[in-house]
Amino acid sequence: MSGRLTVIGLGPGSPCQLTPEASEALHAADVVFGYGPYLDRIPDRAGQRRQASDNREEIDRARRALTEAAEGASVAVVSGGDPGVFAMAAAICEALERGPCAWRELDLAIVPGITGMLAVAARVGAPLGHDFCALSLSDNLKPWPVVEQRLQAAAGAGFAVALYNPISRARPWQLDRAFEILRAHLPAATPVVFGRAVGRSDERVRVTILSAAKGSDADMATCIIVGSSETRVVERPNRTALVYTPRRVGAFST
Amino acid sequence: MSGRLTVIGLGPGSPCQLTPEASEALHAADVVFGYGPYLDRIPDRAGQRRQASDNREEIDRARRALTEAAEGASVAVVSGGDPGVFAMAAAICEALERGPCAWRELDLAIVPGITGMLAVAARVGAPLGHDFCALSLSDNLKPWPVVEQRLQAAAGAGFAVALYNPISRARPWQLDRAFEILRAHLPAATPVVFGRAVGRSDERVRVTILSAAKGSDADMATCIIVGSSETRVVERPNRTALVYTPRRVGAFST
Repeated sequence: MSGRLTVIGLGPGSPCQLTPEASEALHAADVVFGYGPYLDRIPDRAGQRRQASDNREEIDRARRALTEAAEGASVAVVSGGDPGVFAMAAAICEALERGPCAWRELDLAIVPGITGMLAVAARVGAPLGHDFCALSLSDNLKPWPVVEQRLQAAAGAGFAVALYNPISRARPWQLDRAFEILRAHLPAATPVVFGRAVGRSDERVRVTILSAAKGSDADMATCIIVGSSETRVVERPNRTALVYTPRRVGAFST
Repeated sequence: MSGRLTVIGLGPGSPCQLTPEASEALHAADVVFGYGPYLDRIPDRAGQRRQASDNREEIDRARRALTEAAEGASVAVVSGGDPGVFAMAAAICEALERGPCAWRELDLAIVPGITGMLAVAARVGAPLGHDFCALSLSDNLKPWPVVEQRLQAAAGAGFAVALYNPISRARPWQLDRAFEILRAHLPAATPVVFGRAVGRSDERVRVTILSAAKGSDADMATCIIVGSSETRVVERPNRTALVYTPRRVGAFST
């Protein structure tokens, strides 16, 4: 079987955060599958086809990409951020497992990228500087009680928490409920970072505290980082405040 | 104050995984501070100084870098992977908070990179494809009971877990104890990935199951991913097995 499938992380959005490995893999593909706005970020190449699909059609997109690769094409599938974090790599693996045996013989490669929470964290300091969790708030893919239980476990055990897929038109109340749960486990002054479209022209990054965090401050393009009880804010004259979680637990408790 | 301090993520090790933003920031620096082996990865540039230090001297390195930046130099501090994940960004923030007020006026930027767990995950499929935690096993920076409590919370709540700083000469038993704790919460067949020096010439990636995982399979350069009870292994003829965590909880339970 001569086809090849490469799942490529485009990073947060700025071309300067796309790795050379990802650029080369994009260039080498005969056809690129992805959510429309991600395809729009890729420079055109003569002879390369684009297959745009909606962001809720991931398994179907995975199947179509695997089918073309199995027919001999060099196929790329793109994700924003890292393809291994709430994105296409898992969808490709699942479609492959459920699909024809021949798909298991395909040459499959995954090219990592900078995932959203790392880009947001870098903008404000190091809120993920110690132990942390990444949690999707989407209850399309798991029952909501599982989300609540994971929020409680993470905050209760002292992890900072990065929230992916925080809100959408179909999921309007979940983020406020998540803040409510976190408020039961964390101090009111725990720093919260809303990072939207980091690295793109419409970037917006805002730091607040847990007692003031509101779901309406986020949209689909936002990644939210909620600190742990150890996370600190350092005010700076004429600059945005730094937010970081010290490397050492109890670093400031004496 | 004219100085500038940039904290730069070098990614897992391969130059093809260094972002253009990181390359440019490295090139622009008058002086680069870092752990010796990380400095060795950077191409020489005429007129640029290097300041190597040991990997246990992070706060001291941060202070010296901030001091030079405050004196007007363009200073870079490098981390392997992402500087915001168990690395130099938090050390810089902490040294800045504890240091002279003038340091708060410095132009400080953090350039993200691909962190170890994402590079390891990409090599095997998508083991971090659903909710996950990143946890440092080092008890230099937190009491060991806190590590145990976080392992229990993470595995008990269904997170996959990426273990950083798993083992060292001074911390020889902690990783085996971590596996023991995880075995109490997860099925014996839970996939475990040992990813060592991914992207470098001495890369070694191995997949096993939790009941067979041993601390002696890791060294300081290893990042370990322990799946959740949902994580799956897909065997492939003449290829290494894929490991992934489905995007949907319960995807294979019917």
